[in-house]
Amino acid sequence: MSSPAAPVQPPAPRAVRFGVLGCADIARKISRAMLMLPPGAATIAAVGSRSDDKARRFISEIGFPAARVHGSYESLLEDPDVEAVYLPLPTSLHVPWATAVAARGKHLLLEKPTALCTAELDAILSACDASGVQFMDTTMWIHNPRTAKMREIVSDKDAFGDVRVINSMCSFRASEEFLKNDIRVKPDLDALGVLGDVGWYCILSILWAVDYELPETVIAHRHPVKNQAGVLLACGATLYWADGKTANFNCSFLANLAFDVTVYGTNGTLHVTDLVIPYEESSAEFSVASKSSFVKPTIGWDPLPEKHVVTTDLPQEALMIQEFTRLVQNVRAGGRPEGKWPAITRKTQVVLDAVKASIDKGSEPLEVAS
Amino acid sequence: MSSPAAPVQPPAPRAVRFGVLGCADIARKISRAMLMLPPGAATIAAVGSRSDDKARRFISEIGFPAARVHGSYESLLEDPDVEAVYLPLPTSLHVPWATAVAARGKHLLLEKPTALCTAELDAILSACDASGVQFMDTTMWIHNPRTAKMREIVSDKDAFGDVRVINSMCSFRASEEFLKNDIRVKPDLDALGVLGDVGWYCILSILWAVDYELPETVIAHRHPVKNQAGVLLACGATLYWADGKTANFNCSFLANLAFDVTVYGTNGTLHVTDLVIPYEESSAEFSVASKSSFVKPTIGWDPLPEKHVVTTDLPQEALMIQEFTRLVQNVRAGGRPEGKWPAITRKTQVVLDAVKASIDKGSEPLEVAS
Repeated sequence: MSSPAAPVQPPAPRAVRFGVLGCADIARKISRAMLMLPPGAATIAAVGSRSDDKARRFISEIGFPAARVHGSYESLLEDPDVEAVYLPLPTSLHVPWATAVAARGKHLLLEKPTALCTAELDAILSACDASGVQFMDTTMWIHNPRTAKMREIVSDKDAFGDVRVINSMCSFRASEEFLKNDIRVKPDLDALGVLGDVGWYCILSILWAVDYELPETVIAHRHPVKNQAGVLLACGATLYWADGKTANFNCSFLANLAFDVTVYGTNGTLHVTDLVIPYEESSAEFSVASKSSFVKPTIGWDPLPEKHVVTTDLPQEALMIQEFTRLVQNVRAGGRPEGKWPAITRKTQVVLDAVKASIDKGSEPLEVAS
Repeated sequence: MSSPAAPVQPPAPRAVRFGVLGCADIARKISRAMLMLPPGAATIAAVGSRSDDKARRFISEIGFPAARVHGSYESLLEDPDVEAVYLPLPTSLHVPWATAVAARGKHLLLEKPTALCTAELDAILSACDASGVQFMDTTMWIHNPRTAKMREIVSDKDAFGDVRVINSMCSFRASEEFLKNDIRVKPDLDALGVLGDVGWYCILSILWAVDYELPETVIAHRHPVKNQAGVLLACGATLYWADGKTANFNCSFLANLAFDVTVYGTNGTLHVTDLVIPYEESSAEFSVASKSSFVKPTIGWDPLPEKHVVTTDLPQEALMIQEFTRLVQNVRAGGRPEGKWPAITRKTQVVLDAVKASIDKGSEPLEVAS
């Protein structure tokens, strides 16, 4: 018996070869995500650390035993086998190292907060543009299929109507150890503190809800909490759009874990309470009410809100890596870098800047630059 | 066989005989609630309306066929058989009629918003004090057993910790007809508009969450929505306490039905999404997270939030009437009027006043008078 000729498949694109610049804790989550992807998508080719030992220990833990050790960040950047760099260094180091990554023609997956201000981010984005490399920040939840499903619902002009109000609260209760020693409370490392850390998600979730339309004005809440070094531990703001939409957010290192976003539309309401890190990896929920009315005489609701469950084979961080590798492979094949992700990053940073400026000016209203 | 002697029971207190002053729609919900109570708790003895016909029609609909008809409010007040008055008139009529009720020595169950400002409310409360009659406003959810259960949890210094942030949104999408003709959009009837209507619940729910500690300062959100007559259709505010607690609320006649309150503590989080009118009459839910942490490496939550379900034999409005009749019967038996309810009403009105003043002054920060 002769078997039929196998159909001709285009060769699978070669896996994207990552270099990891710095052995941050969060890098363990990223390497775990890479291992979950189909073989041939992404691999860690090298790890750069200020210490050989630290890099070696990191490599032994992350499941990429073939990764090369670089005893300096500079040496990793010179590695011709590294095609893309995942950069989880403290924010204050982003500009020099991110621009160096781009200057070497390597694609850039950058931890958030991406920069201390928009001017710094623009330096990074310009460097990526100039080299034609892909830029993406590491916001994971935006890649969860739940987010796409929620987008569908919020965009439905009939079932949801126009967005009027958004509330977001992102917080976790930091340990004493964190509040003493974490880079996120150090003015020379992550000077944006809680605003750059979970506040980033508040701002992005609000922008997400309005399809990335920038607000006109932001006003920080009064009495932000700072540590002795002046780094923000808890703060908030109200955002105003020209058409009357309003958003409110609070972010905190001093309150129980919360990743809440609620979107109120003229016809619908969306609740999600675990936006940033879903309760469980394999499925994520949200709830939607649409055209809610009362059972007469106002003794109940009809219809009731509906729970939606979105399952996923791959966790959101693996989907993030998958999206980034897809874009890198596209550039490798002659395509242009995808502009959508850096544009979203920049809008988040622009609003974050305005909130920070309003905080620094004692809750003065600040116009949002575009 | 001789049966044992029946134990001597104290005679059941005589039912409280209500007069209803005005045939508002909401009065139908109240009369329905009275019918649900055990016989002998509450009865509608009389209805007063500016029109005999209207009163007669109302009586035929509410299940108290023996109720007397009064063709004027004044005439109802002169009825010696009426012991307590339920007063659902438009807010602008509250002071003259509520003080008249008290002056006749009748107990007062007053629709919210209770008054256009605290000075007005004080006139009403003084009149009740002077006559030694019981005052209560008609906020129903505060009497739901769910509210007591939530109080227990929020007060738990270990499981919940200290309250840091509260968000509240109360809204419904008003019909075109409502926006044209309802008393709640008329400057001469309910001049507080949405702030007095569902905004009342936002403010009260926030005060409830902090065990009725008044905020120090309120700042109204910018750009409140008003109708052509200047009545508020959508607005909001941020509230600040001396110890750093913050609350944010939005109320609206222009967004989908929502009765959300979320309380964020140092150790716990409480979500309720149907505070004012529970989804169903016989049971009500809320969700609590306590000491939430991450599954390492931040890929899920442990422990997960827990859903609590509180069942009730009587709906919250019947429990409200039951509480009011219990207090009236206590005064009848020689006790003093309960001061807790008027105190809560007054605090709500005080904060509402400050929000209104901040709105009127273009979102200036307003100190909250005590």
